[in-house]
Amino acid sequence: MTTTKTIAELSCPAPLPAKDTILLGHGSGGKLSNELVRDIFLPALRNPALARLDDQAIVKIGNQRLAFTTDSFVVKPLFFAGGDIGSLAVHGTVNDLAMGGAMPLFLSAAFIIEEGFSIGELRRVVDSLHRAASAAGVEVVTGDTKVVEKGKGDGLFITTTGIGVVPDGVDLSASHACPGDKVLLSGSIGEHGIAILAQRTGLEFETEIQSDSAALHTLVADMLAVRREIRCMRDPTRGGVSSTLNEIAQQSHVSIELEEQSIPIREEVRGACELLGLDPLYVANEGKLIAIVAAESAGKVLQAMRNHPLGIAAQIIGTVGKEHAGLVTMRTPLGTTRVVDMLAGDQLPRIC
Amino acid sequence: MTTTKTIAELSCPAPLPAKDTILLGHGSGGKLSNELVRDIFLPALRNPALARLDDQAIVKIGNQRLAFTTDSFVVKPLFFAGGDIGSLAVHGTVNDLAMGGAMPLFLSAAFIIEEGFSIGELRRVVDSLHRAASAAGVEVVTGDTKVVEKGKGDGLFITTTGIGVVPDGVDLSASHACPGDKVLLSGSIGEHGIAILAQRTGLEFETEIQSDSAALHTLVADMLAVRREIRCMRDPTRGGVSSTLNEIAQQSHVSIELEEQSIPIREEVRGACELLGLDPLYVANEGKLIAIVAAESAGKVLQAMRNHPLGIAAQIIGTVGKEHAGLVTMRTPLGTTRVVDMLAGDQLPRIC
Repeated sequence: MTTTKTIAELSCPAPLPAKDTILLGHGSGGKLSNELVRDIFLPALRNPALARLDDQAIVKIGNQRLAFTTDSFVVKPLFFAGGDIGSLAVHGTVNDLAMGGAMPLFLSAAFIIEEGFSIGELRRVVDSLHRAASAAGVEVVTGDTKVVEKGKGDGLFITTTGIGVVPDGVDLSASHACPGDKVLLSGSIGEHGIAILAQRTGLEFETEIQSDSAALHTLVADMLAVRREIRCMRDPTRGGVSSTLNEIAQQSHVSIELEEQSIPIREEVRGACELLGLDPLYVANEGKLIAIVAAESAGKVLQAMRNHPLGIAAQIIGTVGKEHAGLVTMRTPLGTTRVVDMLAGDQLPRIC
Repeated sequence: MTTTKTIAELSCPAPLPAKDTILLGHGSGGKLSNELVRDIFLPALRNPALARLDDQAIVKIGNQRLAFTTDSFVVKPLFFAGGDIGSLAVHGTVNDLAMGGAMPLFLSAAFIIEEGFSIGELRRVVDSLHRAASAAGVEVVTGDTKVVEKGKGDGLFITTTGIGVVPDGVDLSASHACPGDKVLLSGSIGEHGIAILAQRTGLEFETEIQSDSAALHTLVADMLAVRREIRCMRDPTRGGVSSTLNEIAQQSHVSIELEEQSIPIREEVRGACELLGLDPLYVANEGKLIAIVAAESAGKVLQAMRNHPLGIAAQIIGTVGKEHAGLVTMRTPLGTTRVVDMLAGDQLPRIC
């Protein structure tokens, strides 16, 4: 399955399913998620912080700008190559703070546990959550536990919420991309999604594919140290690189053109995607970031990324344009251009 | 079922069930919840803010003291007399901030939705959540939506997390109760639990019992305005008044003696409890608070409570003592004394 389309096809989009009930795709991070936010949440809750549609709210308390973000984790299976729901819940929330340029400080963790869940597994998850938090230099300072009857949950769901401080002069938003800016990607894509899927389907590859789950805030700090005026950062999780770039293109009213050959993809991930019929541009990452940077700063920021262990394979993968606002396209090695649309359905439910 | 015991029985407590899997009682707010926190969460995550075991963490950012709290809501049914999961998710988190003396400012809301859930119902819940937030003067500035497969959730779970500012001079904690202090209760107990249970069982009473779900932060502000040095506030939700007072007694290493006849209970709640075999001291409230106040300030604080619409029926219900640290007892109208233990099992699962 691929969800990329030619420009011609775009004028006649495929019909979406009936809209009176929630579909798995509403949680995919793609088109349906986007619609749900715009149709239900934004109109009801309308306020400027939420309307920015970034991965975190920036709120002012006293003279401090704080980043504030929340994510529920429903990943399946709970334990996977390269991580588990505990470490993922820390990395995901730390990264959403970091994408706002914030230094993460405090987390909360709320557990919804299904009756009958193993206390031993709970202990493993909580230990892993703690290790990930300690490694990232954040403290889990408050929490909650609820239990639902057997059959009314699925083992364990965790919701983590984070607070961080945004340094002066930093103002990152998906609405700040400008024509001429460069698109930077911190490393190879698709590893988290493929690691989960391999585990779920029992597929085995010659080399085990591990989730890239990692906390990106020190990478972000290094990038901001060389150029405080970076326009935007986003971690391409659910919905992958394509959905993230479509959101940026929409919110900034710009187009984005990618160079296919500059997008780093590890061989084993490319192979697994071919086998499974997936387009790696739509597969989730949990330890990668996309940055939109003014052209004149791109080289310096790229160098700062490559100097950090989590950005060694960083690349400039594209350019922001002016025409066709909202459109993301990709130039293939053959010189043709295809449209890279937002994820339409539910390529991989419960990836995070 | 009643969980109160005589002092004699306490020396030989009933055995708790096997501890290798999660039981519904682990989410009850009583003994098993308490054990889970002390055995699993505290040792793994140990840090001073969490170890206070209050309903909110107080963290310092810059020169501000912030309260930070999270709660997952799994209430069943989603809509009940006097509220729904949306309004409850706002009130619950606003109240946890307020119990730290904080003025609530911002909320996040994370939704875990079961595939097939009605979008119309989701809209109702989000509208209700918005109305409750607006009424309480807080903004929902960030959120998340995840979808799980049909049969892997139960309609809708919401996790709300809140941030508020703690005014200078306010320092509330369950560990601050001192012998001689008075125990104040803001109004009649048991209404939330009985409203939910009536709905769930289809029981009908002559007068409909409505949940008391309400935001208590303005009541708290009025109380702090007359006496900033209040020792402790708690909202007796899951596990009811008895579990809350047991936690305070444990954390402050004091005893608490209640006067049964001073505890306000509405006739219809008393009747429903008798019919259902419940002790109202263990039934959840969502719009009441308990305050521990130095004896010399108790009259003034009580008057401030009674001047607020949510504290009209406030009462002094007991006194903090020195002997038998950790023990809560109640003097009956007959002059006898019984032990009021923490909730042992799962009196009412999924009450919030």
